[in-house]
Amino acid sequence: MEFTIQSPIDMHLHLREGAMLERVTPLTAEHFSAAIIMPNLVPPVDNLERLLQYRKEIEAARGDHAGEVFDPLMMLFFRQYSEAELIAAREHIFGIKLYPAGATTNSEAGVKALDEVEETFALMEKMGIPLMIHGETHGFVMDREKEFLPVYENLAEKFPKLKITMEHITTRDAVGLLDRYENLYATVTLHHLVITLNDVAGGLLNPHLFCKPIAKRPEDREALLQAALAAHPKLMFGSDSAPHPISKKECCGCAAGLFTAPVCLPILVELFEKHNALDNLQAFVSGNAQRIHGFTAASKTVKLEKLGMQVPERYGDVVPYRAGETLPWAVTDIS
Amino acid sequence: MEFTIQSPIDMHLHLREGAMLERVTPLTAEHFSAAIIMPNLVPPVDNLERLLQYRKEIEAARGDHAGEVFDPLMMLFFRQYSEAELIAAREHIFGIKLYPAGATTNSEAGVKALDEVEETFALMEKMGIPLMIHGETHGFVMDREKEFLPVYENLAEKFPKLKITMEHITTRDAVGLLDRYENLYATVTLHHLVITLNDVAGGLLNPHLFCKPIAKRPEDREALLQAALAAHPKLMFGSDSAPHPISKKECCGCAAGLFTAPVCLPILVELFEKHNALDNLQAFVSGNAQRIHGFTAASKTVKLEKLGMQVPERYGDVVPYRAGETLPWAVTDIS
Repeated sequence: MEFTIQSPIDMHLHLREGAMLERVTPLTAEHFSAAIIMPNLVPPVDNLERLLQYRKEIEAARGDHAGEVFDPLMMLFFRQYSEAELIAAREHIFGIKLYPAGATTNSEAGVKALDEVEETFALMEKMGIPLMIHGETHGFVMDREKEFLPVYENLAEKFPKLKITMEHITTRDAVGLLDRYENLYATVTLHHLVITLNDVAGGLLNPHLFCKPIAKRPEDREALLQAALAAHPKLMFGSDSAPHPISKKECCGCAAGLFTAPVCLPILVELFEKHNALDNLQAFVSGNAQRIHGFTAASKTVKLEKLGMQVPERYGDVVPYRAGETLPWAVTDIS
Repeated sequence: MEFTIQSPIDMHLHLREGAMLERVTPLTAEHFSAAIIMPNLVPPVDNLERLLQYRKEIEAARGDHAGEVFDPLMMLFFRQYSEAELIAAREHIFGIKLYPAGATTNSEAGVKALDEVEETFALMEKMGIPLMIHGETHGFVMDREKEFLPVYENLAEKFPKLKITMEHITTRDAVGLLDRYENLYATVTLHHLVITLNDVAGGLLNPHLFCKPIAKRPEDREALLQAALAAHPKLMFGSDSAPHPISKKECCGCAAGLFTAPVCLPILVELFEKHNALDNLQAFVSGNAQRIHGFTAASKTVKLEKLGMQVPERYGDVVPYRAGETLPWAVTDIS
């Protein structure tokens, strides 16, 4: 039994820097045709020089995969940018990622007051630069996304031509917004289609399933899953694969994020097969993103077969999602 | 500045066995006049012989405190008991603790179907043996207590003379039940008056604040705090202090429970002082329990002064609540 995906795209990916970048980049470069690279480094990727340098490091880290197709779709970290800066950056970036200050890993440099940066939104709207947002308030952890939704609504109304993506949505309410604002889109991770808070803290505490935004309630997971299985036309796959060394996960005060990059495609096929929705997977992991953002991903054909994939316990010092398990599907050919 | 508490009672305490018992027992024996000792050992304390043996071990573990006042109030682990068993146990036990199977640490031997054990409830009601319940379903982690409330209501109605305590309540809804059923009581921990899920998983993941039932929403915490500050006549302090070695806390799959025993009284005084409710603390930590259960605790006068208490980073291999912090209040004299 086999299944083929054309040009899969990861619309939300963390590659980090240095040794971690070198470790994890090939794993995505192998399976995906392109990936949106998150700019929340320290310091953030908030100028063209740093962005081009980061892109070079990613290209170098692809290593053995340098000959293969893989486009890092570069993102600037949101700050107030001048028109000259945006004009210079335009051809090098896919979009700009906005973090409310302090909302997640390395977001301390993020935005504190959205109404003070509207000039930049207006420029982005005029120039057709997409805005991606980590949409969480600083409220109670289970309410942070829901509390942020009015911000999305305000922005969508105020800048009707600005393409706004709600990144890694986790709630039923966020899914509901997709049908109410023409210019609102969303990405969703693999893990938020599968886990709830129960998996993080319902039995023993599981730091390897701790992420931001935190996994929510069963009815939220169900809404996300149904939208993904239906390949909702405004929803895109974005793994939010976020590697942390095990020393930062199995400790007091563990870092947020799941490392899913090497298992995304096998598990997506497993999930969509289980729900008889394999026909919609191509749109969810590639087609929707290309249509929404009007680009053509480089051709890459990924074949999966039901031959079993033994997930390693570790990739270096990073524990992947479903470490040690045997997944039914494995990537067996890439061309 | 000083504050004195007469005969403080901890209505919900875990002492464990062996080396852990020896380590933690003196810490409660020093500060408290009496404490209800939870029976969820492996195997559980579900027969008189084991209970009397366990009591001996506790007495021995008091060590240097053997001359001081401290009554371990022994509990049987709920199972179906015959009338003869209950008659033999009656004078040696304070009550019987019921765990739904699998709800928390070492509860695998708990009850699977409540309607099959009603004979024992009827005997307990007839003999005036209090029933203490860990009230959680196996549902979504934030809903488990709320989903269990109808069980409390059914039991309270069906056995109107059975004294039922909802142990370590964590929700506003549970507080609400206290005023609706004459025979329903509750204990509440120190930590559930202070923390919410935000403290466990809102920033970095904090395994040392992970407990069962898990800390809930801000409005739940507020309802619990207000009931405690008002010394609600049906609410009793029960620390649920639950020591785990650090190797079981700072790891993948950390155990549930906070070790609060050595800091309960200083932090309770801090909390009640902050909310101008010191006048009600005596009832909350002692008076209510004695009135509700109709017993007189041995006399013990605990004086606290605002001299500062440096909380150790560890007691042996156990990390206490607020480890390393300096608390404003310290226990300075016990007589």
